[in-house]
Amino acid sequence: MKFEEKALKAIVESLSETIAAARGEVPADIRFENCRIVNVFSGEIQDGDIVVAGGRIVGFGPLPAKDVRDMKGLYAAPGLIDAHVHIESSMTCPSQFAAAVLPHGTTTVVADPHEIANVMGTAGIAYMLDTSADLPANVLFTLSSCVPATSMETSGAVIGPAEIAEWISNDRIPALAEMMNFPGVLFRDPEVLQKIAVATAAGKPIDGHSPGLSGADLTAYLAAGIRSDHECVSLTEAREKLRQGMFIMVREGSGAKNARTLMPLVGSDTWHRMMWCTDDRNPHDLVQEGSIDVLLRMAVSMGIDPVTAIRMGTLVPATYFGLHHLGAIAPGRQADLVFFRDLESFDAEEVYWKGKRVAAGGVLDASVTFAEPNVPPSTMHIEAEQLDFRLQATGSRIRVIEIVPDQIVTRAGIDDACVQEGLFVSDVRRDLLKLAVIERHGRSGTKAVAFVRGFGLRSGALASSVAHDSHNVIVVGTSDADMQVAVVAVRDMGGGIVVVNEGRILERLALPIAGLLSTLPVTEIAERLHRLVQAAHSLGCPLKDPFMTLSFLALPVIPVLKLTDMGLVDVGRFDIVPLVFQENEEVL
Amino acid sequence: MKFEEKALKAIVESLSETIAAARGEVPADIRFENCRIVNVFSGEIQDGDIVVAGGRIVGFGPLPAKDVRDMKGLYAAPGLIDAHVHIESSMTCPSQFAAAVLPHGTTTVVADPHEIANVMGTAGIAYMLDTSADLPANVLFTLSSCVPATSMETSGAVIGPAEIAEWISNDRIPALAEMMNFPGVLFRDPEVLQKIAVATAAGKPIDGHSPGLSGADLTAYLAAGIRSDHECVSLTEAREKLRQGMFIMVREGSGAKNARTLMPLVGSDTWHRMMWCTDDRNPHDLVQEGSIDVLLRMAVSMGIDPVTAIRMGTLVPATYFGLHHLGAIAPGRQADLVFFRDLESFDAEEVYWKGKRVAAGGVLDASVTFAEPNVPPSTMHIEAEQLDFRLQATGSRIRVIEIVPDQIVTRAGIDDACVQEGLFVSDVRRDLLKLAVIERHGRSGTKAVAFVRGFGLRSGALASSVAHDSHNVIVVGTSDADMQVAVVAVRDMGGGIVVVNEGRILERLALPIAGLLSTLPVTEIAERLHRLVQAAHSLGCPLKDPFMTLSFLALPVIPVLKLTDMGLVDVGRFDIVPLVFQENEEVL
Repeated sequence: MKFEEKALKAIVESLSETIAAARGEVPADIRFENCRIVNVFSGEIQDGDIVVAGGRIVGFGPLPAKDVRDMKGLYAAPGLIDAHVHIESSMTCPSQFAAAVLPHGTTTVVADPHEIANVMGTAGIAYMLDTSADLPANVLFTLSSCVPATSMETSGAVIGPAEIAEWISNDRIPALAEMMNFPGVLFRDPEVLQKIAVATAAGKPIDGHSPGLSGADLTAYLAAGIRSDHECVSLTEAREKLRQGMFIMVREGSGAKNARTLMPLVGSDTWHRMMWCTDDRNPHDLVQEGSIDVLLRMAVSMGIDPVTAIRMGTLVPATYFGLHHLGAIAPGRQADLVFFRDLESFDAEEVYWKGKRVAAGGVLDASVTFAEPNVPPSTMHIEAEQLDFRLQATGSRIRVIEIVPDQIVTRAGIDDACVQEGLFVSDVRRDLLKLAVIERHGRSGTKAVAFVRGFGLRSGALASSVAHDSHNVIVVGTSDADMQVAVVAVRDMGGGIVVVNEGRILERLALPIAGLLSTLPVTEIAERLHRLVQAAHSLGCPLKDPFMTLSFLALPVIPVLKLTDMGLVDVGRFDIVPLVFQENEEVL
Repeated sequence: MKFEEKALKAIVESLSETIAAARGEVPADIRFENCRIVNVFSGEIQDGDIVVAGGRIVGFGPLPAKDVRDMKGLYAAPGLIDAHVHIESSMTCPSQFAAAVLPHGTTTVVADPHEIANVMGTAGIAYMLDTSADLPANVLFTLSSCVPATSMETSGAVIGPAEIAEWISNDRIPALAEMMNFPGVLFRDPEVLQKIAVATAAGKPIDGHSPGLSGADLTAYLAAGIRSDHECVSLTEAREKLRQGMFIMVREGSGAKNARTLMPLVGSDTWHRMMWCTDDRNPHDLVQEGSIDVLLRMAVSMGIDPVTAIRMGTLVPATYFGLHHLGAIAPGRQADLVFFRDLESFDAEEVYWKGKRVAAGGVLDASVTFAEPNVPPSTMHIEAEQLDFRLQATGSRIRVIEIVPDQIVTRAGIDDACVQEGLFVSDVRRDLLKLAVIERHGRSGTKAVAFVRGFGLRSGALASSVAHDSHNVIVVGTSDADMQVAVVAVRDMGGGIVVVNEGRILERLALPIAGLLSTLPVTEIAERLHRLVQAAHSLGCPLKDPFMTLSFLALPVIPVLKLTDMGLVDVGRFDIVPLVFQENEEVL
């Protein structure tokens, strides 16, 4: 193996400084006195000091230090690790995301840049890596394994085995990201197996994603080398997966909330294979509820030993991802520390990253400042002014996507079309609204129009460039004119979310980074989203979160009827179906 | 990262076959029915089948298989892993070592080739890798970190940072071997830190070796990234090391027996950081007692849960070394299985490696045959006929190495010399015998002669090419003539052990591989050693194992007075001292 002289020299120097400080030959940077130290190795809580030099832990005794802080009996835990999260779900850039989670004690996130990768490909991954490289937090990325997610939509990019091989060895990429394409594994898709082979050869773990998979199919999926799962929704499912060797990531997100259900699986025999993750946190929840601390609170309130809960948010993910410099208060490890007043509320009194204080009392330290990230070139390649949403009436009965409130699954309805002047049009009275998905990556120029029930708009239109997984522009409206104004507005912002009525923009949120991310603080994004929702409500929409609902209507892996830029997708058949329903067809 | 096309293709093909078998699309090779499966993930014992295809585990249900075996309720555990062992201590070649441990259920050994590396350098490591590559066992090697062990002896080779860099990425080298040079770490020896830096950059763990180290010095040693220890001799020591983040390898060897002492540390909070190892097993103990099964028996007899004991011999070392294809009965993992009748005696009824039976009822399967390994060129570079053991009498009081029976430490005595014709000579009456160490690597041609008390020979001589750590030839005798005959005999065998009396060889064991290893089965080696010991006893030697004692007399890291080819070593002073004691010197 070739080693870079410079890299080796840097390691030797760092080791040398650390050892000298550990022996007290030079003064350390800080000594935290009077800590109750959570020992994730032995499961104990020990009274002692923590000494830090050069960003690393170098001792537990009375070593000389330039700065001595009396922690007055606070509990000291390793910085928390979120084992699986999509930063894009919080609609903010990595720096603002870090700013949001650090005050909660989360110093490490392992993020899957699946959304931005679907828009920008490896350039998107590079963007996330670059803009998070200098943050006072460990922002790591798994390498998106399923871009595009399906062949029934036009994504902005393709990440194949060659790209995986190019990126997998990056120091800040500890794993191959969730292998959602489990049918591809089971049916031995050569490209899928090649991606797995590359990750295996590189010695990196492969995150799983296998909702509901069990028995022989689960075994077959795991036999490919998949090592973790964050999709368990029942105790039975989690138990089977753990028994078969998967690390179980217990998830508490904005969409999927599984922690309460899975908590009974945590025990003295199982915790070493279990960890916490948030997966998706919308801006509101991130601000109001927090990060991994939410899971610690839940765990302890349900009777789980607090040290066990902390281990699942520190040592276990560090071990799983091979991050041996993180996850414990131990010699030589990075001094990422969170001080708690008690192990019940888990309110982070103080948070340190590499021995520097970054937050206290739930607020980011004033000294922590972020440069505004560069915004990459616009990814909105739409001739918005030329869009034509008209649909020739070629029948009388049509397929209708029927929304199930607060769910990402839909129902497939069949209804009488509303026809005017030979065209299918929206029918506000019956809540039958036009829905369109417009390819925006400049790759195919495709567009599909269909009908949806459940948005309840009496006038106006809603549009967004956040539409899983390819993130084309999706728009729902009562008139073609407002739909067009909405799409133009989204395009003009370089991506974003908008509410339009009678040709006028009521509210908007620009998401100029890949049409997915804002550069605003999460609190402000949450506030703007709130106003967007209120504007939608003012137009008659009864949905709690119409933009979340909208964003999943284009995702052709979630049942049952969806719309991509290629057309209506019958997810059960995994095929495109026509808008017009023929009476001799079988009902879905 | 560059990936070899061929290697990737092989992984894809293997994945594909495994998945197909897991889905029952093609018949598997074997289905073991009616097993009680030890689940190292969940801690449970589950009734079920184990299905194997292509050497991997592919299922637990009624999949089609070419061969079905009713295991009649036997317990099925993953093949056992010895986390740290020196094959050289058993004086046999890797194939015969595997033949000895497989019937005990040990299918994986992580061996440190420290002894052969001290004689042959990386060629010795290559020899061990080559001759074990095709064995029906996983024989892995850590990369010897301390060759030579000290600067006060002439070893056969030097392994520096460049050699470490060349070998560390080898697939069958999961770690840097025990970093015995802890003073080198604490005092930041640049070469030592470079070796550590290379292993760190390669992402490989670094085994530790730090007997008795504690407090700030232990922290400093660990801060360098050292991750495990197998040298704990007290519960207090082990607890401190575990708390500071070391994986504890509980050792039960022929020399050091720590298991009984350390067993109380094993608990539900700690087992995940603990594993078993044998370190050194002499041929007799290997034959009579066994391998890792010895530790399982001891653990259970001392009240430890059997599944916990098994986890420490399977999943924990597999995780520690990053051997994710081993250590569990789980989808896709290698089908290394051991079937036990009960979890108390741990007698291995049947043992499988990659799904092939290799042993049953404590005996290797007849189908398992080994090619006799090539013997490398002789490493005995001694002009044995020219040796001159005479010592000019330059004083009257001399330093004497005093043996402590059954220990590897010695005492330092001072006694009146026996002088004849102006020469220091052996004095059988006072058990003051000549001891010589002769450099045999053809590097320096050095030789040192001194006196030892404790061998009790009334006539004759004992010689051996096994003499830690540089393995020069060591010889003790009542006359210069017999000492020379003994060294000539050792040289003529290409290395070995010999007992000589009055010019005649009484017993001998050839160790033609590096002067350390035989190609004989371990049982035969044990028998020959037994005869050697009896021959020594017949000459008046009262020591239980005179050759073990002899082999440690040249090891200058064990207190207090030793002899290397460079002279008498005062281990306390870490310096060479003269044979003649000056009355104005301070006593040791």
